[in-house]
Amino acid sequence: MNLTALANHQVRLARRPNGMPVREDWSFTTEPVAEPTDGGVLVKTLSLSLDPAMRGWMNDAKSYIPPVGINEVMRAGGVGKVIASKNPKYAVGDLVSGALGVQEYAAFGEAEAKKAGLVKIDTRAGTINQWLNVLGMPGMTGYFGLLDVGQPKPGDTVVVSGAAGAVGQTVGQLAKIKGCRVVGIAGGRAKCDWVVGELGFDACIDYKAGNVKAALKEHCPKGVDVYFDNVGGEILDDVLTRLARGARIVICGAISQYNNTTAVQGPKNYLSLLVFRARMEGMVVFDYVERFPQAVAELAGYLRDGRMKSKEDVVQGIENFPDTLLKLFKGENFGKLVLQVAQD
Amino acid sequence: MNLTALANHQVRLARRPNGMPVREDWSFTTEPVAEPTDGGVLVKTLSLSLDPAMRGWMNDAKSYIPPVGINEVMRAGGVGKVIASKNPKYAVGDLVSGALGVQEYAAFGEAEAKKAGLVKIDTRAGTINQWLNVLGMPGMTGYFGLLDVGQPKPGDTVVVSGAAGAVGQTVGQLAKIKGCRVVGIAGGRAKCDWVVGELGFDACIDYKAGNVKAALKEHCPKGVDVYFDNVGGEILDDVLTRLARGARIVICGAISQYNNTTAVQGPKNYLSLLVFRARMEGMVVFDYVERFPQAVAELAGYLRDGRMKSKEDVVQGIENFPDTLLKLFKGENFGKLVLQVAQD
Repeated sequence: MNLTALANHQVRLARRPNGMPVREDWSFTTEPVAEPTDGGVLVKTLSLSLDPAMRGWMNDAKSYIPPVGINEVMRAGGVGKVIASKNPKYAVGDLVSGALGVQEYAAFGEAEAKKAGLVKIDTRAGTINQWLNVLGMPGMTGYFGLLDVGQPKPGDTVVVSGAAGAVGQTVGQLAKIKGCRVVGIAGGRAKCDWVVGELGFDACIDYKAGNVKAALKEHCPKGVDVYFDNVGGEILDDVLTRLARGARIVICGAISQYNNTTAVQGPKNYLSLLVFRARMEGMVVFDYVERFPQAVAELAGYLRDGRMKSKEDVVQGIENFPDTLLKLFKGENFGKLVLQVAQD
Repeated sequence: MNLTALANHQVRLARRPNGMPVREDWSFTTEPVAEPTDGGVLVKTLSLSLDPAMRGWMNDAKSYIPPVGINEVMRAGGVGKVIASKNPKYAVGDLVSGALGVQEYAAFGEAEAKKAGLVKIDTRAGTINQWLNVLGMPGMTGYFGLLDVGQPKPGDTVVVSGAAGAVGQTVGQLAKIKGCRVVGIAGGRAKCDWVVGELGFDACIDYKAGNVKAALKEHCPKGVDVYFDNVGGEILDDVLTRLARGARIVICGAISQYNNTTAVQGPKNYLSLLVFRARMEGMVVFDYVERFPQAVAELAGYLRDGRMKSKEDVVQGIENFPDTLLKLFKGENFGKLVLQVAQD
């Protein structure tokens, strides 16, 4: 392959957004592609994972990961194909996942490849898009957040917000497999119907339809043992009023708050933690990297035997990245949001 | 003793307060005293424990304990002397602690005595006032909250708010004994000086002096491993920004919020739980009743060998109950607030 003939189209963070990101927060650049250095590898991006967490990475704030720098290529996980390699770990033609960035080609030195978490994937375990969903970061987040932090027991009532999203679909289906009663919270009738009808949740509350508290009372008569929170805001406060004694709340994210131009809305009902002797605990998926293979093996088994389904919402074209990302914050994605950059 | 000659002065909840309790929220009644029924016991109140939690019991809200009913004698823990008994467990002259209520004499049937947690106390282990402080509910709250929920390890940095209060003094001294670095938060120089000079905390932050966040940075250079929270509000939010990875926050109370006429101020920095992989957990002391004797024995040992000190702020006279309770919410008490009803 004549690499020098290739142009690498990239999306960079031009400035830090104030509230919801706008077009002017991004810049589009084109760079030449070069042969990898010794130990390096060149990856052609196939699909990118679009995640709520990306919004946090755009802020200049101390967090679990440094922010994306101004004029840096936007950070993104993805799946790509190795098209040139001077590293014995990666052969041309291998499919790999890792932090590729929002660009058509990702070049890594030896140390960079490790830092990007570049690992080979096996499409016998799942499709490329499933490797960004159930078998990827969202799936790992759901798996370890639910099992390690949430610690559900058979018979527990598990509630998950963002139920039709990438993390939510894994959490709910996994909780069902582990013998729990599962109630989702999602926006709109179509998502709720899918969550119950296709994924097999026991119930799903449409928060856009209104009274979440009353619906929780109806669907969680014994209270909520595990709440896996992807959204924060009012819904977190509503669930706090319906906890079972000794409940565990997994703080995975707070998508309702990510584009605030004012302070985050803290859970005003947090003293329910005392009333119900409950706990609220944060988690970050990167802490579990060593155990990803075990989780992938288990989840791939469920995909294979049909006990777990996955749904991806695929948008085409790297130039559509800025608008596509916003679908997450408007609740417009239905399933795991994927940006397909190339077919092959 | 001629019981019928005695008059029982009582303080009752006349109506539910709106914000800070006022005189009109209370009524004063006088009832005759009667011989105990079979299995019953009559207790003369000596000292009552005045606690922030009392404010919560006055609200008509679902909580860990039913609210005090309108026109009921206000609930209060205390120490008293048995002056008549038809129950073989209690002899005349015994000192007992339990839920005596804000009244001069407490009459219990057999089942009521059990429900009130009426147990004999031994003044060789501590004074009557210490039985309301380190050896009483505040001490038990500090002991189990710190050790069971906070799970401090030697070398950990433990921060406790309300450091000069009843629970705070036990928590801080116990954390020192367990090998932790201990930083208190209290209101005013005098309290802070006492907490460091007398109780041996490593540092104490005067929140009335201003910048709590900067002071936490100075005194907790490695971050906060355990935060024992008695106050909520801004201070909780400040501590959330200074957590160490894997921190444990014990939610014991939120005195800053108890007299709100608007909603509780939720911790707007709660997403720090995610950043620091930390947890926030509520506790209620009544869950640990079975283990009180073990904790009392340990704490009495520390009092005896001088490793632990206790300070009580004693106010005289049952008629002063309404005003005295307010000292808690104004931060005017210095040490455990006790209302002495009778000398003997």
